[in-house]
Amino acid sequence: MAEKRAVVLLSGGLDSATCLAWARREGFVCDAISFRYGQRHQFELAAAARVAESQAVSSHRIVDIDLAAFGGSALTTDAPVPKDRDETAMSSGIPSTYVPARNTVFLSLALAFAETRGAADIVIGVNALDYSGYPDCRPEYIEAFERMANLATRMGTEGGRAVKIHTPLIRLTKARIVALGRELGVDYSLTHSCYDPAADGRACGHCDACLLRKKGFAEAGLADPIAYVT
Amino acid sequence: MAEKRAVVLLSGGLDSATCLAWARREGFVCDAISFRYGQRHQFELAAAARVAESQAVSSHRIVDIDLAAFGGSALTTDAPVPKDRDETAMSSGIPSTYVPARNTVFLSLALAFAETRGAADIVIGVNALDYSGYPDCRPEYIEAFERMANLATRMGTEGGRAVKIHTPLIRLTKARIVALGRELGVDYSLTHSCYDPAADGRACGHCDACLLRKKGFAEAGLADPIAYVT
Repeated sequence: MAEKRAVVLLSGGLDSATCLAWARREGFVCDAISFRYGQRHQFELAAAARVAESQAVSSHRIVDIDLAAFGGSALTTDAPVPKDRDETAMSSGIPSTYVPARNTVFLSLALAFAETRGAADIVIGVNALDYSGYPDCRPEYIEAFERMANLATRMGTEGGRAVKIHTPLIRLTKARIVALGRELGVDYSLTHSCYDPAADGRACGHCDACLLRKKGFAEAGLADPIAYVT
Repeated sequence: MAEKRAVVLLSGGLDSATCLAWARREGFVCDAISFRYGQRHQFELAAAARVAESQAVSSHRIVDIDLAAFGGSALTTDAPVPKDRDETAMSSGIPSTYVPARNTVFLSLALAFAETRGAADIVIGVNALDYSGYPDCRPEYIEAFERMANLATRMGTEGGRAVKIHTPLIRLTKARIVALGRELGVDYSLTHSCYDPAADGRACGHCDACLLRKKGFAEAGLADPIAYVT
């Protein structure tokens, strides 16, 4: 039987680490891809490398893209990262941490990588529930990307398997994601979620990513193994 | 009246130079974007800079992306570039010069750039007629990308103008493209089309890109101002 290969987008955060474990359980041989896109929280790339190694991926590639040259996001400029927002604030509108067209750029590069690896499956840890208002995390966006990808590529147009974008976490709460990861044996001490870590890499504990993560562990009744500044 | 801004994908070739002139005639203030993607024919980036300057763009950005790290194309590896193919060979199947998901990656980065510049319009010189078999040059692909882009971005989801991908050349023969460019005052001596130029930058005269270009000028009854090896 032919080997099933998948490209997994791996940020080094809790969600993508869980996605990778999910893809392995589904029987995929996994190639991980991460992006150095001018993000301020580059600690996540070290986390991605740790997660990739701990889950024995077939390969892990870090691709440089200079999204920061375009400006436009608090994650890639000196604009302040929002702190201590409540859920109402988080879910109203698109936040300043939105990076223009980020998932589209990432999925496009994952698609190019997948095509050269002979992988028709791409796994991305987007989430439409705890999603902080990013338009490119919604199911209708993912469906539109998949449709486009099948028209874009040799894989999609010369028969064979069609391109499939898997979003195993899209309908899960952060608590259910954490519970799934535990079940799959993910070591969350290796992951990094914070948008604005201290110089020593510790999570700030107050940005949207930290707040959602802490809430997820609390609701799942599990201890978060990473260190926070406060 | 609000300024109309467009992002124009500028490779330095004949088609994209014509697209830029078209966009200016349509009244757009143009930001040009080019890509250094590991292509063997990097002379085209110098051509892109000449064309951008000659057409007085608002800005010109060259973005680095390491598509070559993925392999998979004769344009980014040491695989031989096909030479002296007749039209039957050119139009049968996807050639080895196909770069996996190239237009998807380029359009995604153009979309990110457009969003940060406040441009809802993107112009790309794809061509479905003289197109050498690339799946990501077909109208149905462009429509699918546009639909996805409107779901992906702040522009597409918070009202305002929807994202539009313009493909002014998609139904034109190379001869008609050359004729249009002449009418618009494009200086084709600044452009570069060859996939496999000599060390001094002269076009090889035998790759698909050279053959299509020469045929276009011949059929338009115009002289091609660039130098060929043979």
